[in-house]
Formats: sequence, structure tokens, C-alpha cells
Amino acid sequence: MLYLVGLGLADETDITVRGLEVVKKAERVYLEAYTSILLVEKEKLEAFYGRPVIVADRELVETGSDDILAEADKVDVAFLVVGDPFGATTHTDLVLRARELGIESKVIPNASIMSGIGCTGLQLYNFGQTVSMVFFTETWKPSSYYDRVKENAGLGLHTLVLLDIKVKEQSLENMARGRLIYEPPRFMTVAQCASQMLETEEERQEEVWTADSLAVGAARVGAPDQKLVAGTLKELAEVDMGRPLHSLVLLGKRAHDLEKDYIKQFAVDQATFDAAWQKGGYGTM
Amino acid sequence: MLYLVGLGLADETDITVRGLEVVKKAERVYLEAYTSILLVEKEKLEAFYGRPVIVADRELVETGSDDILAEADKVDVAFLVVGDPFGATTHTDLVLRARELGIESKVIPNASIMSGIGCTGLQLYNFGQTVSMVFFTETWKPSSYYDRVKENAGLGLHTLVLLDIKVKEQSLENMARGRLIYEPPRFMTVAQCASQMLETEEERQEEVWTADSLAVGAARVGAPDQKLVAGTLKELAEVDMGRPLHSLVLLGKRAHDLEKDYIKQFAVDQATFDAAWQKGGYGTM
Repeated sequence: MLYLVGLGLADETDITVRGLEVVKKAERVYLEAYTSILLVEKEKLEAFYGRPVIVADRELVETGSDDILAEADKVDVAFLVVGDPFGATTHTDLVLRARELGIESKVIPNASIMSGIGCTGLQLYNFGQTVSMVFFTETWKPSSYYDRVKENAGLGLHTLVLLDIKVKEQSLENMARGRLIYEPPRFMTVAQCASQMLETEEERQEEVWTADSLAVGAARVGAPDQKLVAGTLKELAEVDMGRPLHSLVLLGKRAHDLEKDYIKQFAVDQATFDAAWQKGGYGTM
Repeated sequence: MLYLVGLGLADETDITVRGLEVVKKAERVYLEAYTSILLVEKEKLEAFYGRPVIVADRELVETGSDDILAEADKVDVAFLVVGDPFGATTHTDLVLRARELGIESKVIPNASIMSGIGCTGLQLYNFGQTVSMVFFTETWKPSSYYDRVKENAGLGLHTLVLLDIKVKEQSLENMARGRLIYEPPRFMTVAQCASQMLETEEERQEEVWTADSLAVGAARVGAPDQKLVAGTLKELAEVDMGRPLHSLVLLGKRAHDLEKDYIKQFAVDQATFDAAWQKGGYGTM
């Protein structure tokens, strides 16, 4: 049996009791470690599970899935995924491959950022489609996400923006020389995301948002040191929210008063928040 | 401290390790039992936690929140919520009330149906806003949900439809006579939801969907007997998916081939599925 086990959002204790039972009994335990990360080291997980954990990078999952699935028709294999196994990144390809090989699979759900973002007090009913923000480079600043946010904004809906992470990245030089030397992992911050959004708006000029649009930054959702900040994009572009992982929500105009009361609690500045709410016409759709 | 603890979707073992630690230590433990239910009895939860559990109905949460919060500035109170505390139903009002009373609160996230629905293989990125479906009566068939689905469908997005539950409901006669006698709980099935959708379409006639539109029914997401069925609304209106809880996803036209491959695995009928996919123009947006 292949078990896809959600680990939740923060540390080793966010696994469910059911999930932990599976991990403790599995013959092999893999940890998917390229689309998201837990806030703890692999060694801490191993100590908690009492089991060795094999880190599965993108290459292993995408081209070596048959190694992961080896003998899973006879023994139990646990494939651990930060958040929920079918959350932001789905692992349907692994399940489909298992099925081709005649291997059954079961999913142990857990919190995902896609629902955990409800901790902002913004109602999940009021969210449109989720988008991703990649690290811009000098020459590559994709703005396809802008079109998706525009669709949401047109309906007055909030947009969850998931922020890029780069794990096991090679520099161009090392890649060209075939050297398997990796850069340190990088995680996009709320401030970087807000800045890039302002950059895209400047380029596209369709006023899907402005520097005074309201947004909520969320850091380490579900962890004891979770941090939430509400403010204008201009304010959030300056905010320091500490260690990863970060996410951002662009507020929709259909936002209502209970949502306002909740997020105002953690506004960068209550006066600019109120002014931006008024000026932006929030709560009027 | 007020802890809002997510219980996940299926049974007592879906609580997280962190959540279980909180429950075992809390002075009082409440279970929110009117917006969703676990698939196990209260007694089983109490045995698992080793603690008595106070069932909190709508009345207690909405008008008796100060009882729940009594002395929570000195002792730990755990408020258990099926799914995630800020999932489909948010409990921001309780947190705001706690704050007014100078009581800190912490949230322990868990799987919510809003992300758990990813088990269908449909990508959460491709979902628009979530809607709710209430039980229609002879004289009350609200169709405001239709407008929301129309907005999603216009963008080619999937819509998650959450299905009504009725707990501690009084008959009109008992209510009129002031008798506190409650009807047995009722849970909407996928078949009822599909039928009601066809009824609304017949009334509204805007072709947001037809009897041949594709949808996915999901029952007991995250439980060992989880069941998924894909088919046309006409087919789903006849399907028996067993015990609660059920949800439904109306497929958006932006659906892509990997999603198709995944849901086709559990199609009611693979031939009608393929025909409906073709005829409906799925995958072309």
C-alpha cells in the first residue's frame, strides 16, 4: 500500500494520530522536500517517528517514482507531504503510476495553506482561485498570475498568493559546468511578493491593484510563532515577517465588516488601514 | 488560553499530535456540533481523549460564548471544531469575543473539506468560490448559490458545493408548542444536491449547467471508506454514496487532461463520461 501522508504546516507534531501510526509501521518513509518545507529539520522528524526518512527531491519523484513504489504491492510505503497531499501541489501522478502498477493508495489528509489561510479571519467562501508568485529575475517577470487575480478581483473575491521556494537550485555557472553544487534554499517573503506585485501593476497598468490596495501577509501559519499583518501593498513591501514560509492574500472588494474587524487587529497602521478601506471601496460589492 | 482545535474530517484519530496534547491538558473541552460532524460518537472521543467533552450547540456558541470562555484567562479551554477551526465555518466571532475579554487564543489547524476535496484529483488552483446548498422545501428553494456558480463557470473554474446538515431541528408543530423535541439529524446526499441543482437550472434557465454537466461526488473524505464518484448531474442524481458527509464538485471547463484521467477512474460509466466531456467542451478553455 502507498500512503500519502499530510504533515500539516509547521512542525513534527502537526501530523495526525492516524498519520503517525502509518509512518511508524511503514517499511520505507519518503519526505517530499521540493514544493514546500516543514519548519523543522529532517533529523527531528526521524527522532519523532523513530524511523529513517528518505528525502525525495523533484528528480526522484518525477523520474524515479518506480523506486519509491518498489514492492509497495507487498509492503507499506509512506510518502510524506508538507501540508495536504492533494493541497497546493497534487501528487496525483504518483497515485496514477501506483495504480498502473496495481498498487493501492490511501491519503491521510492534513491542514493545507489553502484552508489554513482561514486563520487570517478572511472567509474561505470569499476566495477565488489561488495563484503562485515566482521569483522575478532581471529578464523574466511572468505576469500570467495578474490575469487570474484580475478575474477574482472582478468578482470582488480575495486571492491567495502562494510564494515561491527554491530548493536544490544550481547557479548557471555550476549547471553549465555540470557541478552538482546547490545554492542555499530561498523562500519568498511577503515584502518581496508585494514589491513584485507593484512592479507587475506598473507594467500592466490595468489597475487590478494599486499601492493602496489592502492585503494580508501571513507567516508560519499554524506554528506557535505564526504572524499576521494587514496593510496596503506599499506597507507590506516594507514589512519584515521573519523566517519562512510566507503567503499573501490580496483583499477582494466583497470583503465584509466581520472580516474587516478581524484583520484590522493586526494592521501595520490602523489609520492608513481605515483610509485604504474607505478609499478602495471595500465592503461595497 | 482559548485553543480552537481542528479535528479533521473523519474520526478521532484525525486530530493532530499537537491538538491531542492540548485536549489532554485543557481544563474544559467543548465540541462544536452543529455545523459539521465527525463520523464517530462523542463517547468514542471521550475515551480517546480521556476527558469529558461538552457538546456545544448553536445556541451555546452564539449566545453563551461567555460560559465557554469563563476563566479562560487563567485556565486552558479547548474548543473542538470538525475540519479546520477557520474552514467552511469560521469561528472568528468567538476569537474576537475572547479578545474583548482579554483572553488569548491559539488555533490548531487541520484538514478542512475546502482543501480535503483535493482528494478528487481536481487541482485546488482551479477552484473558484465555494458555495453551500441548503435543503429545499416546497416553498423555499433559494437560488442565490446559482449566481456564484455562474461566476465560477464563466471563468471555467470548478465549484465546491458544501451540503446542508440539520442537527437539533424542531418540527414546526413542536416549535409552535414550545416542545424541546428534536428531529433526527439530516445530512444532504450527493443525489439530493444534484437533483436540487437540476431543479434550480430548470427554474433559472441560464444554462450554467445541464443534466449532462460533469460533477464529482465525494463521501466521507479522509475516512477509510471514502468514496468518490464522477458522472453527469443526471447520473449523480441517482447515485447512492452511503453514509454522510457528502460534498459535490461541479466541474469547470478549464479542467485539464490530468484531472480528467484521475476522475475518470471512478466514473459511474466511462462511456457517458467521455461523451459528456466531449460534448461539454471540457478542457478547451
